[in-house]
Amino acid sequence: MKTVTLLTDFGLKDPYAGIMKGVILAINPDVRIVDITHEVDPQDVREGAFLIEESYRYFGKGTIHVAIVDPTVGSNRRPIVFAKGGYFFIGPDNGLFTLIYDDTVRIYTIENSSYMGKEKSPTFHGRDIFAPAAAHLASGVQLSAFGNEVQDPVLIPGIYPVIEKHFLKGEVIRFDRFGNAITNIAQKVIDDFTKQKACTIHFRGMSFRKIQKSYYEGEVVCLIGSSGYLEFGYFKGNLRDKLGLKKGDQVIIKIS
Amino acid sequence: MKTVTLLTDFGLKDPYAGIMKGVILAINPDVRIVDITHEVDPQDVREGAFLIEESYRYFGKGTIHVAIVDPTVGSNRRPIVFAKGGYFFIGPDNGLFTLIYDDTVRIYTIENSSYMGKEKSPTFHGRDIFAPAAAHLASGVQLSAFGNEVQDPVLIPGIYPVIEKHFLKGEVIRFDRFGNAITNIAQKVIDDFTKQKACTIHFRGMSFRKIQKSYYEGEVVCLIGSSGYLEFGYFKGNLRDKLGLKKGDQVIIKIS
Amino acid sequence: MKTVTLLTDFGLKDPYAGIMKGVILAINPDVRIVDITHEVDPQDVREGAFLIEESYRYFGKGTIHVAIVDPTVGSNRRPIVFAKGGYFFIGPDNGLFTLIYDDTVRIYTIENSSYMGKEKSPTFHGRDIFAPAAAHLASGVQLSAFGNEVQDPVLIPGIYPVIEKHFLKGEVIRFDRFGNAITNIAQKVIDDFTKQKACTIHFRGMSFRKIQKSYYEGEVVCLIGSSGYLEFGYFKGNLRDKLGLKKGDQVIIKIS
Repeated sequence: MKTVTLLTDFGLKDPYAGIMKGVILAINPDVRIVDITHEVDPQDVREGAFLIEESYRYFGKGTIHVAIVDPTVGSNRRPIVFAKGGYFFIGPDNGLFTLIYDDTVRIYTIENSSYMGKEKSPTFHGRDIFAPAAAHLASGVQLSAFGNEVQDPVLIPGIYPVIEKHFLKGEVIRFDRFGNAITNIAQKVIDDFTKQKACTIHFRGMSFRKIQKSYYEGEVVCLIGSSGYLEFGYFKGNLRDKLGLKKGDQVIIKIS
Repeated sequence: MKTVTLLTDFGLKDPYAGIMKGVILAINPDVRIVDITHEVDPQDVREGAFLIEESYRYFGKGTIHVAIVDPTVGSNRRPIVFAKGGYFFIGPDNGLFTLIYDDTVRIYTIENSSYMGKEKSPTFHGRDIFAPAAAHLASGVQLSAFGNEVQDPVLIPGIYPVIEKHFLKGEVIRFDRFGNAITNIAQKVIDDFTKQKACTIHFRGMSFRKIQKSYYEGEVVCLIGSSGYLEFGYFKGNLRDKLGLKKGDQVIIKIS
Repeated sequence: MKTVTLLTDFGLKDPYAGIMKGVILAINPDVRIVDITHEVDPQDVREGAFLIEESYRYFGKGTIHVAIVDPTVGSNRRPIVFAKGGYFFIGPDNGLFTLIYDDTVRIYTIENSSYMGKEKSPTFHGRDIFAPAAAHLASGVQLSAFGNEVQDPVLIPGIYPVIEKHFLKGEVIRFDRFGNAITNIAQKVIDDFTKQKACTIHFRGMSFRKIQKSYYEGEVVCLIGSSGYLEFGYFKGNLRDKLGLKKGDQVIIKIS
């Protein structure tokens, strides 16, 4: 039984995620469907890019990940499918998979109408293109049968932190339910930058000289979250609300 | 493996949807349960009626749809079960299935206590009546075994748009997550009314002379949504918030 | 096919519940996963304790319930596993299972690293400890293989209502989606206290001389909810919003 996951910004109030599941199961009942989230902030492709990167590897090999954050649905942006490291990915070619791509990846458009639904709504490719593609992929259709190879996938600019001399600059990408601010600065990037020298982390007027281990230890805490990225939190409280944090708030790490 | 779907206004904070799944699986483990939504606006039977109509057909034939928006649970409103076009429906007789019924439908009450739970809470028929009925229906129980035929199902009054001479009048039924306003005016109703003549659509002081294809094209947009109904949206923004829209806001289409 | 349920305060925006499902299915694909809720109020262990108690029994025997509301994750609080009445429970030893425990229960720590994930995040034991434990338990691992027996599980103080002479005192524990206020006073506790004598229920300046049967009957209503606990509600309205109710609001029952 193949697993298909869904990661979208459709929300859970609307029936769209449920309808996608109906479409998948009507084509291929031997599939198990798992929600990663449907609450990506509406149309925030950048947040979606981090969420799929953080999540995909915890599923078994062979899992098909359908990710849809798609503000330009209905335009000429391409629907795509590709594999990486034993996992499959389906979604719009708008940068959502920027953090997944590597040199080994061969990306295909989804153009073959044999693998699409009969309806062709310009606003709901989840139902009419991506869900059918996932069901057919789970049935064994080859990637190259869906369409043509894409040589120039769209990438999100400025998604990685940057190094400017003695500074490593990143930003807040998303907030979790507890109000913790999760940045785009991966542990490995910090390690490569500091080379084990002491450093200071500057964020919203605060300075941190130490990356802590858990929320249990202090008040405002700077730590490497479970996703492997630097984050800021507040023990038993909501840091975003407390400090009025916003996505895009800058983080600067200096060798001290 | 039969599929049972759930569409309710129970929300996802409370354990009620989860408890219903427990009840279904304890009776019949060979069932797959899929959520359509649990976030129908509390006690808004009219919204629920459109959501089940929009969703049910995308599932495979044989699917059992359990829909519960039930403000008068515990009164003498009847629990019912019926089939239409290869799909099964279970829920309260309060108009929730108004848009599903047609001349072929035979509706039965759920009265046979062999197919109910042992508890009989007056406030949670989802757990004690509808979930057990779904599990037993999936096991092959005949519709007529549940109770007696209903000749006078409750219908929601005023749910369809009305034609008054040169005007077609409808209203906003619900908002999706992106703030798009979805009306009760189906594409087919517009086509039958305009007979391909030019028309103007009036909504909250705005006039639209053209139904557009997707959110990509303009600012405030009037289009046929993926559900087949006329809707109003705003590219990359939230039209409800922007204009302070409300359910029931009127839409008038005039032959121009 | 074993059923594993999840009850957490992770919310549905973050990918954490989805990641846990990935981990479980990667270890043991022959498992069915059902969400009870992921919307326990953040870090409210007391609310979680009532929700798991209310829900677990509706699932089939053999079900594995994973419950995680875990403000002190990363501290030395123990991860635990135990069985009761044919059901299995996995989660933190912080009082979350206070209402489940009885004299028959033998509780074990989860310490055996053979049954943990490879990663060891101090902030996401759901992924690295509890999900793997559930998957291995579903595969047939014995409780005693996970760790050592716990003789002193943490209990939540003051979780039960108290009797002081002619008064039975309880409080509001949680609100459901409709704004109904659910207390910690079980029907059985009321029956044992009143011994069928007439009583008056005092709540926020209101007095109720009768426990009603359903929301259909009156305006502000006092009834035994589907969970078996005393609750206060408002027909077709939201009592919490109407009266500004809060968790912890006191309820007093007097023999009259």
